[in-house]
Amino acid sequence: MTSSFIIRVPATSANIGPGFDVVGLSLSLYLTLTVTIGETSTLPVITYSGEGADEVPLDPYRNLMTRVALYVLRCNGHRTFPPDLSIHCHNQIPFGRGLGSSGAAVIAGVLLGDSLGKLNLSRERMLDYALMVERHPDNVTAALVGGFVGSYLRELDPQATEAAQVPLSEVLPEYPSDAGEDWGLSPPVPPLGIGHYVRFKWNSSIKAVAIIPRFELSTAKARAVLARELLEERSVPLPSQVFNMQRLAVLTTALGQTPPDPELIFEAMKDRVHQPYRKTLIPGLPAVTSLITPASHPGLLGICLSGAGPTILALATHNFDSIAGKIQEIFQQEQITVDWKILEVAGGSTVDS
Amino acid sequence: MTSSFIIRVPATSANIGPGFDVVGLSLSLYLTLTVTIGETSTLPVITYSGEGADEVPLDPYRNLMTRVALYVLRCNGHRTFPPDLSIHCHNQIPFGRGLGSSGAAVIAGVLLGDSLGKLNLSRERMLDYALMVERHPDNVTAALVGGFVGSYLRELDPQATEAAQVPLSEVLPEYPSDAGEDWGLSPPVPPLGIGHYVRFKWNSSIKAVAIIPRFELSTAKARAVLARELLEERSVPLPSQVFNMQRLAVLTTALGQTPPDPELIFEAMKDRVHQPYRKTLIPGLPAVTSLITPASHPGLLGICLSGAGPTILALATHNFDSIAGKIQEIFQQEQITVDWKILEVAGGSTVDS
Repeated sequence: MTSSFIIRVPATSANIGPGFDVVGLSLSLYLTLTVTIGETSTLPVITYSGEGADEVPLDPYRNLMTRVALYVLRCNGHRTFPPDLSIHCHNQIPFGRGLGSSGAAVIAGVLLGDSLGKLNLSRERMLDYALMVERHPDNVTAALVGGFVGSYLRELDPQATEAAQVPLSEVLPEYPSDAGEDWGLSPPVPPLGIGHYVRFKWNSSIKAVAIIPRFELSTAKARAVLARELLEERSVPLPSQVFNMQRLAVLTTALGQTPPDPELIFEAMKDRVHQPYRKTLIPGLPAVTSLITPASHPGLLGICLSGAGPTILALATHNFDSIAGKIQEIFQQEQITVDWKILEVAGGSTVDS
Repeated sequence: MTSSFIIRVPATSANIGPGFDVVGLSLSLYLTLTVTIGETSTLPVITYSGEGADEVPLDPYRNLMTRVALYVLRCNGHRTFPPDLSIHCHNQIPFGRGLGSSGAAVIAGVLLGDSLGKLNLSRERMLDYALMVERHPDNVTAALVGGFVGSYLRELDPQATEAAQVPLSEVLPEYPSDAGEDWGLSPPVPPLGIGHYVRFKWNSSIKAVAIIPRFELSTAKARAVLARELLEERSVPLPSQVFNMQRLAVLTTALGQTPPDPELIFEAMKDRVHQPYRKTLIPGLPAVTSLITPASHPGLLGICLSGAGPTILALATHNFDSIAGKIQEIFQQEQITVDWKILEVAGGSTVDS
C-alpha cells in the first residue's frame, strides 16, 4: 500500500532594493515535490523535471533537498529515510538567477523531513532548521511563510550562538562513498528561535515582472564577489547605511498602501549597499535603472536586482508588457538575451495529501 | 482689533533603537504658541514659560522659532514679520534631552511663518522648509505629521542637491546688530520634495515611559561625539549594518500588530549603529538595557535611547510605574537623578484659531 503527499514551495526574491539580507518576497513559480512511500526501493529514488533537471544531483546523499530532510530527520531521532520512498520534483524556479532556487530546496527539504518523520514542527522551528543550512533569513523565510516578509537573526546566548554557527559541513556533511548506516548520525541540533519575522502588508494590485537574463550567475559566485569587494572593506560608509535604512523603513509600509505611490516607492527601492557592487556583473543594469522610470512607464513602481541577480525585478500595477519590453531592449543592446515573466506574490509553502 | 491663533507642536523621540536618522515618534508633551496680532509693538514680542524659559533667547532675530518663521516668510515675498505681533510660548518639552525640543521649535517656526504669511503651504512643502534648517528628517517629520513615521531624504538632481545643501548660516543668518530692513532678504528657497515619509501603524495600547536624567546633553554635543567617534571612521561594519536593517524592518511593522509581541519587539529595538557610541555618555544605560527585560518586567516591549539621549524610552503596554521605578533605581546607583513621564503617542502639529 502506498501513500503520497505533495510539497509546494514558491520562488523568492530577496532584498527588493534596500533590504539586503532582510526582506524577501514569495513569487508564483514553484518547486513541487510529489512524494510517494511504498514503492519498492532501498534508497530514495529522485526524479526531476523542469528547471535545473540536467544539473541537479539525484543521489539522495548529494541532493540538497534530501540532505536537508535527512538533517531534520536525524536531529529528531530518525536514523535515515523511510524505506520505499520516491520523490518526483518538478521545478519552475530557474537555477542561479536570484529567484531563490536554493532557498526553495532548503525549505522543501525541511518540509520533507518534517512530513517523513511525522514531526509536526512549528513554522518557527522549521525556520530554525532552514537557518542552520542557509544563514541568511531573507529567501528561506519568504519561501516558508509566503508574502512580503522581513526577518532578523536574534542575538542568542553565547552557547546557542556557537551552536548556530557550526560549519555547514557539520550540518550537511559530504557523505563518503563508503559511509555506513551510522555515519553522521548526530548532527548539531539548531538552537531555539534563531530568527524572528513579520509579514508586511502587500497591495494586491502590485505584480512583479521578473526579467531573467540567459546567463547563469550562481548565488555563490555573486556572493563571493560581494564578499570580496565589500566585506574585504568590512564596512559601509555611514551615509550609505542611513540611505538604505531610510528607504527600507519607508518601502516595507509603502508597498502595502492603497493606492501604491510610485513617487514614494521608486526612490525607496534604491540601494547603496549591494547593488553598486553587483551592477558590474550585469551589463545593462545601470541603463535599466536610470532610463526606466514611473514618468516614462506609467504603472511602474520600482526596479531592483532580485537577490544577488542577474534577474531584474520590476514592481508595477499595469503596463507590465511595455516595461518588460523596454528592459529587454536595453539588454539586447548589450547582447544579452532575456526571458521575462509576470509573477504574482505567492502564499507560503504547502504540504497536501 | 486683534486676531490670534494657537500653534501646538508635539515632542518627538528619534531612532527608537535601530532607526538612526530614519524613524520618529511624536509624544504627548507640547510646545504651544499663542500668537496675537494687533498689540502695539514694532518688533515681535516673545514671552516664554515652562521648560527652557530661562535660557531661550527672546530676541526675534536670535530665537530659533522666529528665525525659521522669518525664513519662510522671506522665501515667499514677505519682507519681515507683520507689525504688532506678540507670541507667548509655553513649553513642556525638556531642552537638550533627546525629546525633540529643537525639532519642535523648527516646526513651530514653519507653521508660524505659514500662518503669518497666509501661505497655505502643503505639509510636504512645510517639510521642505524644516529640512533646510534641520537636515535629519526623523524628529521634524514626526513633529509635523504626528505618530510613528519613517522618512527618507530623496536623491535630488544636482542643482536641487546643491540648493538643499547650502550652509545653515545662509538659511538662518546671524543678524548683525546694525542690520537694516533689507538685510538678508533673499534666503535660499528649498527645492521641492526634499523628503518623503510614511506613517507606520501604531498599536494604541503602547505607551512610552520617558526617563529623563537631570543633566543636559545638547543634541549638538551628542551629535558631535557621534560625529567624532563614528564618522571619523566614516563607516559601519557590514554585520552591524545588516543587524540594524533587519531589526528596523521588523520593528516598524511589529509595533502596529495586535497584540504587540514582546519577544519580537524587545530584540528588534536593539541597535549597533549609534547607541554603542552614546552609551558611555549616559552612565547606567548599559545596566538598564541588560537588566530590564520583558521576562523581569511583564508589559515591557523594549528599551532604547531617545534620539541622542540622555532620555531613555521604554515602550510598554502596562506596568509603567514598576518599569520606570526600576530604571530610576539603576540610575540612582550611578548618582543620577531622573524624572519620568508616561507619554502617549501624539497627533501631528496643529494650528487653531
